[in-house]
Amino acid sequence: MKFTLSHTDQASKARAGILETDHGTIQTPCFMPVGTLATVKSLTPRDVWETGARICLANAYHLYLRPGTQIVREAGGVHRFSKWDGAVLTDSGGYQVYSLAGLRKVTDESVTFKSHLDGSRHQFTAEKVIEIERDLGPDIMMVLDECPPSNADRTVVKSAVDRTISWAQRSVEHFHKTKPLHGYDQQLFLIVQGGIYPDLRTECAAELVKLDTFGYAIGGLAVGEPNATMYEVTDHTTDALPTHKPRYLMGVGTPVDLLECIARGVDMFDCVLPTRNARNAQLFTRDGKLNFRNSKWKTDFSPIDEETNSYASQNFSKAYLSHLVNSKEMLGAVLATMHNITFYEQLVTEARARILDGSFVKWKNAFIARYNTVK
Amino acid sequence: MKFTLSHTDQASKARAGILETDHGTIQTPCFMPVGTLATVKSLTPRDVWETGARICLANAYHLYLRPGTQIVREAGGVHRFSKWDGAVLTDSGGYQVYSLAGLRKVTDESVTFKSHLDGSRHQFTAEKVIEIERDLGPDIMMVLDECPPSNADRTVVKSAVDRTISWAQRSVEHFHKTKPLHGYDQQLFLIVQGGIYPDLRTECAAELVKLDTFGYAIGGLAVGEPNATMYEVTDHTTDALPTHKPRYLMGVGTPVDLLECIARGVDMFDCVLPTRNARNAQLFTRDGKLNFRNSKWKTDFSPIDEETNSYASQNFSKAYLSHLVNSKEMLGAVLATMHNITFYEQLVTEARARILDGSFVKWKNAFIARYNTVK
Repeated sequence: MKFTLSHTDQASKARAGILETDHGTIQTPCFMPVGTLATVKSLTPRDVWETGARICLANAYHLYLRPGTQIVREAGGVHRFSKWDGAVLTDSGGYQVYSLAGLRKVTDESVTFKSHLDGSRHQFTAEKVIEIERDLGPDIMMVLDECPPSNADRTVVKSAVDRTISWAQRSVEHFHKTKPLHGYDQQLFLIVQGGIYPDLRTECAAELVKLDTFGYAIGGLAVGEPNATMYEVTDHTTDALPTHKPRYLMGVGTPVDLLECIARGVDMFDCVLPTRNARNAQLFTRDGKLNFRNSKWKTDFSPIDEETNSYASQNFSKAYLSHLVNSKEMLGAVLATMHNITFYEQLVTEARARILDGSFVKWKNAFIARYNTVK
Repeated sequence: MKFTLSHTDQASKARAGILETDHGTIQTPCFMPVGTLATVKSLTPRDVWETGARICLANAYHLYLRPGTQIVREAGGVHRFSKWDGAVLTDSGGYQVYSLAGLRKVTDESVTFKSHLDGSRHQFTAEKVIEIERDLGPDIMMVLDECPPSNADRTVVKSAVDRTISWAQRSVEHFHKTKPLHGYDQQLFLIVQGGIYPDLRTECAAELVKLDTFGYAIGGLAVGEPNATMYEVTDHTTDALPTHKPRYLMGVGTPVDLLECIARGVDMFDCVLPTRNARNAQLFTRDGKLNFRNSKWKTDFSPIDEETNSYASQNFSKAYLSHLVNSKEMLGAVLATMHNITFYEQLVTEARARILDGSFVKWKNAFIARYNTVK
């Protein structure tokens, strides 16, 4: 795997890069659709490919519980299991353990939790998560971290940082002791925690950078803190990360968040918004979000979105989508998901072109102004 | 519109024909996927096209209630509304009025019913249904009929036959008084009722044949009567219909039903089985139905069905489909629907080839023997 920085913007910290994996080349900044259970909800892999996405997320915690790590391993890894030809990144499930699982108990050694599905008891260690991700076979493996809630006080965040650093050290050690199982390269990303405390972010980043892994993620943001704070912490944290390595901001965000954080030096994003909102009939456009439960679309025969170049956006009318949504037809979710992911992919693709031609900041500000204009 | 009989089997009543419409040519025998609300549930129109289907069903009753006839008319008809490039047949909704609607009241003049959605009161007459179908713009319009339950006694069935004949006469008259609204040809099919009573079927068919419409349907079957009875009544009724006109057996059936009724002279079929069963994780194969809720598929990494030539059947493993189904992922329904419709389409396509080469009955019997073998 190889990450090459093609260009850094003069007027911002925005970067255009190229991430080469054994499952294809990804141009950064990139947006990774979320496919928690090895499926981007409602879309076939060929439809996901058509959105322009070349790397998807899956979730180690979820796949470990269902269908079980062993089944994905026997299938030849998550790509072959799900027939996705692009690259895959698996989140460790640290976040899910804290947000979904019941009765979890965290010690310096491990986190014990009850499955959100059947209440069965499980234990994750830093090493165990590496093993799971070797079995699952993503191109990029995320380490187990501790992700405190946004309202956690400094003492709690400091303790999470210490544990995240210690687990990162153990993860890297175990990563080097183990090998890919499916015949292609896997690389490890560490996760910077530290909440909204700049000094804790700096400390965490400094310790993780010493471990010299392929890439770095910024975790524990977009968990309830104000947007301005999220941007500040992101800005601060990217300064503490190596220039020549990819940076991934986990779980972010809206189209505006993506552009603001690209401007602050982030290369990779994932978020459930385009997929989850699609299933709630909310579509992203350059004019902001459209809610297709609103009856005003019932007789609008114009295309869903002429500015987004997808089968769904160009071929079907707002009236038809409104009909599907109001009738609770699955095709409504399918078309909305196709549209939303394509919108996100075309957004980062255009951002990259604007970084390369030097017009990124001007373009970003115009995009945001139009997006936020009340219609 | 034009129907040409290409060949009739020597060893059975099976026919191979060609139905030419302004939305393309359909080879018969054909299977029409059900797209009640102008969407074949879970599939995009391009995915429906890929199954081999060239004509789909929609339902006048359902579309009249939601999104409303006027909206489909303004969209330019059901094809443009749903972006389906093939042909469309709309069922009148007679069956739905009897099976879904509440508090219906049938007189010789009309049927009054309450919407299954909001309880609002509506009235359908033979003429009103023609008007609705002119608005909706299918290639083939079905008349309003009266469809008695399978356990109805002879007096009730006789009265339904009389009303069906009278409504057919009024429908034909109104059909000729009105014109297509969307710039392409529309033709009318009448529906033979008569329950399980051969003489009532004969009487009904004879009266309808006098009206000389483009095609004829056999209604009121597969509503609970034994399979053998359904085959007998079908066999009897096709004898009472003109040779040179298309015959459509409504709401039938399983793969075996299709072959048995093709052998009895039927040209066109529709049924919810491939789509509805797909959403319940049941897949049709040459070895019978497979239930993907069964845990035995969890570790079967062979393709869903090597004998069905579809993206879904060939590319994804049984283990992956099992995972999707067990996780209640929408993609499970999508892949199963693609597979099932393709299976049906390839079944009728092969039936046609076997009719043309003279091996239909032998092939049908072998297909059924294998399909019914307990594994």
